[in-house]
Amino acid sequence: MVSSTEHSQTDEDRAAVENAAPEAVATPNDSDAELARIEDRWRRAVADLDNLRKRYARELDRERTTERSRVAGAWLPVVDNLERAIAHAGDQSDAVVEGVRSILGQALQVLDQLGYPRDVESGVPFDPQRHEVVGVVEHGDSPPGTVVEVLRPGYGQGSNQLRPASVVVSRREE
Amino acid sequence: MVSSTEHSQTDEDRAAVENAAPEAVATPNDSDAELARIEDRWRRAVADLDNLRKRYARELDRERTTERSRVAGAWLPVVDNLERAIAHAGDQSDAVVEGVRSILGQALQVLDQLGYPRDVESGVPFDPQRHEVVGVVEHGDSPPGTVVEVLRPGYGQGSNQLRPASVVVSRREE
Repeated sequence: MVSSTEHSQTDEDRAAVENAAPEAVATPNDSDAELARIEDRWRRAVADLDNLRKRYARELDRERTTERSRVAGAWLPVVDNLERAIAHAGDQSDAVVEGVRSILGQALQVLDQLGYPRDVESGVPFDPQRHEVVGVVEHGDSPPGTVVEVLRPGYGQGSNQLRPASVVVSRREE
Repeated sequence: MVSSTEHSQTDEDRAAVENAAPEAVATPNDSDAELARIEDRWRRAVADLDNLRKRYARELDRERTTERSRVAGAWLPVVDNLERAIAHAGDQSDAVVEGVRSILGQALQVLDQLGYPRDVESGVPFDPQRHEVVGVVEHGDSPPGTVVEVLRPGYGQGSNQLRPASVVVSRREE
């Protein structure tokens, strides 16, 4: 997707340059009109230059963000497996299990510092922006449409999201 | 470093636009010279536009690479700790230790797929591009200047390196 966007923008640039390309040189007897024409083209080229610079600044920023989420997202399966290893250990407590717990904490800190805080909040109203429903249950204690359990944590928030939290919600009233 | 580079290049762009800015409008009696001047400025603006486009294409590529290595590098302490946990477990073998071994394998695969293969090769000649010497030993079996032990793996290769391998080399002949 990113590369196709780049491609079409490169084409735009080329079009901008081509639109500004010289036509046949005017005869001297109409040099005032020619001057106005050339001056107009020059002004347009300067304006294009300015627009291009602004557009690329935005694009650089977007590329950085895209690459950041791509690379950080590649680590989520590793983080999920650290969680699973700890869950499987249950009450077992030895140096290795303690080590794994501390490594998970470190991994979550890396994600947080990259701008993707963990989302495991339950008891909040369902929000399609941050939650993916994987189950619906009767749950007398919660108002309908409440997150009653997070089965898989989400990471990130708002437009800066690696993935939504997979949640179980209480049934809405029929 | 990246942001200061961007800043100076933005200034360059601005300077290019300002250099091309209109001066006082010429009187009609010298319109041929004026035409030539404006036409020259217009051509320079078009050339700047083209250069800017090429430069930003390179810059986009560099920004992606920089962001990739920054984000991937943030995970190396996590990977190192997985290795340490396994080393501490020694001969201990239970579900958790096996789990950690498999998670380490997964993490190394993520790094490899991002373009940073692990470097733990010993028995090769010392190479300042990929090795950082942390110890020198007498080692009768190896020619002088050979990597006899890798204490901490390196990741990546050539210009695409996250960090060099920390190695012990055999003493060079005096």
